[in-house]
This record gives sequence, structure tokens and C-alpha cells, in this order.
Amino acid sequence: MISAAPPIRIEDPSDSRIAAFLSIKERDLTGRQGRFIAEGTVVLRMLAAAHRSGRGITAEAILLLENRLAGVAELLAQFPADVPVFMADARVFDAIAGFNMHRGVLALGRSDAMPARDALIAALPAASLVLAACGISNHDNMGSLFRNAAAFGVDAMLMDASSCDPLYRKSIRVSVGSALTLPFAREGTAAELIERLRAAGFAIWGLSPRGETDITEIPPSPRTALLVGAEGEGLPPPILSAVRTARIRQRPALDSLNVAMAAGIALYQVASANGRI
Amino acid sequence: MISAAPPIRIEDPSDSRIAAFLSIKERDLTGRQGRFIAEGTVVLRMLAAAHRSGRGITAEAILLLENRLAGVAELLAQFPADVPVFMADARVFDAIAGFNMHRGVLALGRSDAMPARDALIAALPAASLVLAACGISNHDNMGSLFRNAAAFGVDAMLMDASSCDPLYRKSIRVSVGSALTLPFAREGTAAELIERLRAAGFAIWGLSPRGETDITEIPPSPRTALLVGAEGEGLPPPILSAVRTARIRQRPALDSLNVAMAAGIALYQVASANGRI
Repeated sequence: MISAAPPIRIEDPSDSRIAAFLSIKERDLTGRQGRFIAEGTVVLRMLAAAHRSGRGITAEAILLLENRLAGVAELLAQFPADVPVFMADARVFDAIAGFNMHRGVLALGRSDAMPARDALIAALPAASLVLAACGISNHDNMGSLFRNAAAFGVDAMLMDASSCDPLYRKSIRVSVGSALTLPFAREGTAAELIERLRAAGFAIWGLSPRGETDITEIPPSPRTALLVGAEGEGLPPPILSAVRTARIRQRPALDSLNVAMAAGIALYQVASANGRI
Repeated sequence: MISAAPPIRIEDPSDSRIAAFLSIKERDLTGRQGRFIAEGTVVLRMLAAAHRSGRGITAEAILLLENRLAGVAELLAQFPADVPVFMADARVFDAIAGFNMHRGVLALGRSDAMPARDALIAALPAASLVLAACGISNHDNMGSLFRNAAAFGVDAMLMDASSCDPLYRKSIRVSVGSALTLPFAREGTAAELIERLRAAGFAIWGLSPRGETDITEIPPSPRTALLVGAEGEGLPPPILSAVRTARIRQRPALDSLNVAMAAGIALYQVASANGRI
């Protein structure tokens, strides 16, 4: 049975047991050394789910403002007892975390046991929806992509190595924790990604304002991958010429949709067409 | 013929002619005194369009980093000659604007001649699509709502007085300038807004995760208003019981979609169903 560790009170911000939480805003932990920071109760709940799923995301430690303890007791019980829970009063907490945007609920996680891209693709179910992305450099957009992907039943999110880290603090927050629960890999080039997805039987559709097919006309397919490109430029021409392309109708003479917005609309259509939502 | 004013060089950050641009980040001009700040060339282009349209948004002054001048000459020509153009070198520019996120292109605008809500509703075309919003407190979401509304051909955006100002600097930027070109009003209560829209013959659909009608089943109507509520809580129960409600299918047991995302998907559907895009 799962039961939380009894909370350990921290009196000294320099206590070595909470060293990893020090000044998280300044350091903005980004999965470097396979570590990330999760903030707030909603994300903590997703971290618990990710930890239990055994897919490579684990919780290392939890740090709470003491007055939040009672409110999250049920949530703490979802973590195994070997995940230490620290608590501190407001003065000590702010001295540790260095800012007050965390609402008193922080967790430190590890992601270093996640499956690599090819293993992840190999493990996808026969009927799958994948969101692939290349060159996504904005953490808000990355978080929004995950949030939308989760809402519309995406099985895995696959990014090229030039995309930013979904486990950056802000990206996790914007994803409402979906960056922790939705399987993903971030490695290699977009060209390799397309090749691997094609070998695995995926119909690959690149989203572009100049796409050939209206998104409502994308035919159902047991395995569909939507591919989106960087904010601003979109998908590079060599990639667009290597896949089928789809467009979202909109008023002309305006900037194209935000990438997460475009992905959300297209995922909604494709997930609907495939009876996944 | 429209032609830009010859640029005036500013050598002293305390020059009274550019006082309104001083330390814009700290002050974060929000349409107080009917004034707003527009940043970057894309937004400047939208400001020029808004100014020319004569619908109540005007440009007061433009401030450029001197090395941006040549690149925006064609754009400056879209403003009348009575809009002064100031330029400064990097040292003076940063001393004026107080930060370096503006990419060297700033404009000061006024919005105090915009039509009031009822006048705006009265002037809507016979076939109209309106996005109505209540309790939107986040400037990113407000900007995204405008961006999506513009993309899908919304004729006017109507907000209750509790929503935040779309002419806040960040909101304008996130809207990619659509907050300047899309007619809007922000006044009164959501209940009044519903009453006025109904009196004007609008079919009003409130978006909610528990909505009765799937968004794909919203019937075409010459006049449709989509209504969205605050992040987090969504539309309040008295409002939901006063309108027809629609839902977006998604995976269960997840946080609902971001409000701008939900509005974008619903607008895409309704604009498609009504042949507007």
C-alpha cells in the first residue's frame, strides 16, 4: 500500500536535504541532470500519477509550506513513503525557493529513466495518435502543446533535439502537468523522426498555412502523426516536401495561428475523425 | 496622400516630447487615460490599419531605435504626417523605454474614441459572429482570444467590465495586434451583455465542459455569439442557465482546455458551419 512519508520540518534554508530546491527561479531547473521542478497541487497530482505509472518519471522530494500540509494530505498519500516530504514556514520556504509564485507546493522530480525515441515509438499501440514537433523554442508553447495533446488523447509527443525541454519549470506549469504524464522523447532531427514514424506505419501530416489538404479532410488512419514547426517560420521546406500537408482555414492577411492553437484545432479534428474523443 | 512625418532625433531621455514612453515596462500602460503601448513591427502595422479605419484607435507617436528606421520606412508611410516619429540611439532608447524587449519599435496610441458596447452591437452587420467573454483576468489569455477571434472572422469582441484590459501592453503583443483592429467593448455585466445580444437577434452559446450540445452540432445562424468564462471556474451557473451551452469533446479526467484554446476550437467550428472561413 502507498503511504506518504511523515513530513520533516526544515528550519534552516541551507539544510543540505533541500539543497536541490534552492533558488529555483534563478536556476530554472530544466531537466539538466535529469531533474525538474513541479509547482502547485494540480501538477503535484500529475507527478504522483507519473511516478506510479513507472514510465521513467519519478518524484524525488516534496517541499511544502506548512500551512498547505493539511490541504494536500490526500495527495501526499499517493506518493510512496520513500519520497521525503519536507515542510517549512513561510520565512524559511521563501528563503529556500527564492520567490513566492509556487503557492507553497513544490516537488523535485527525475526524468532520467525515460524511454528513448525509438523505444517509445516501438511501444505505441496499434491505434495511435502522435504529435511531432520541431524547433519549438518557447516554453509556453511547449507546455500548451502538451496540454492540448493530452486533452485530445495523444499517445506520445515526439520532438527534435532543437526543441526546448518540456520539463522546464514553466513548461510543466503551462502543460498543467501533462508534460509529466504524456510519454515523450526529444532527440535527433525532424527528418529522422519522420523516417521512424513512417517505418512504424504512421500517416504523417505537416501543419502549414499553405498545406494542401484541409484539416477536416485528413482521412482516418489507425496511426496518425501531426507534425508542427517553429513559431514564426513554421515547418522548413524540406520537411514540408517530405510529408503530406494540411491547413487550417482562417481569415487571410493575418498572422498565422499560434503553434499550440493550430495543433489543438488539428488534434481535435483528427481525434474526432478517428473516434478517439 | 498619406506620408510619414520626418523622424525627430531624441538625444535626451528626459525630453518632454517622449515623456509618455518613459519606463513603459514599470508603468505597464493599460489604456489608463485611454492610452496604450504597441511594440514591434507586426503590431505597428496593425496600429496603422486601426488608425486608418477611423474606428476610435489612433496613433499618437512612434519611437524607433535609429537602426530600425530604414527597415520600417514603408510601414511609417502608412501613418499620417501628424503622427510624430521619434528616433534615438540604443543608449538613449534603452534609457527611455527602460528595457530591451521592444526590438526598437514602439508606438503610443489612444483608444478613447472607441464606440460603447451598445453602439458597437447596433452597428454589427446582419450576418455576424461575436465572441463574448466574462471574467477573463489573464492578459495572455485575453491576447490569445483576440488573435483567435481575428483569425476566424469574429466581427466584435464583447467583454464584461470584470475582464482585463485588452490594450494592456502584453495583451496587445500576444494578440499580434488584433486587439487594435478587432472592434471591442468592455463594460457592464455578463447578464447585460447576454440581454443586449439576445435583443439583437444573436443565438448565444456558452462554452462549458458540461455543455449540452457538442460544438459540432451548433446550428448555423446569421448571428451567433460564443460566450466564454474565466480561467479556472468557467462561466458562472446563472449565466450557464441563461444561454444554450456547448462542449468540446476531450479526454476525461484532465483539466479543461485553456480558455483561449477552447474559444479558438469553437470559433473554428462555428465559423466553418456558417461559411465564414
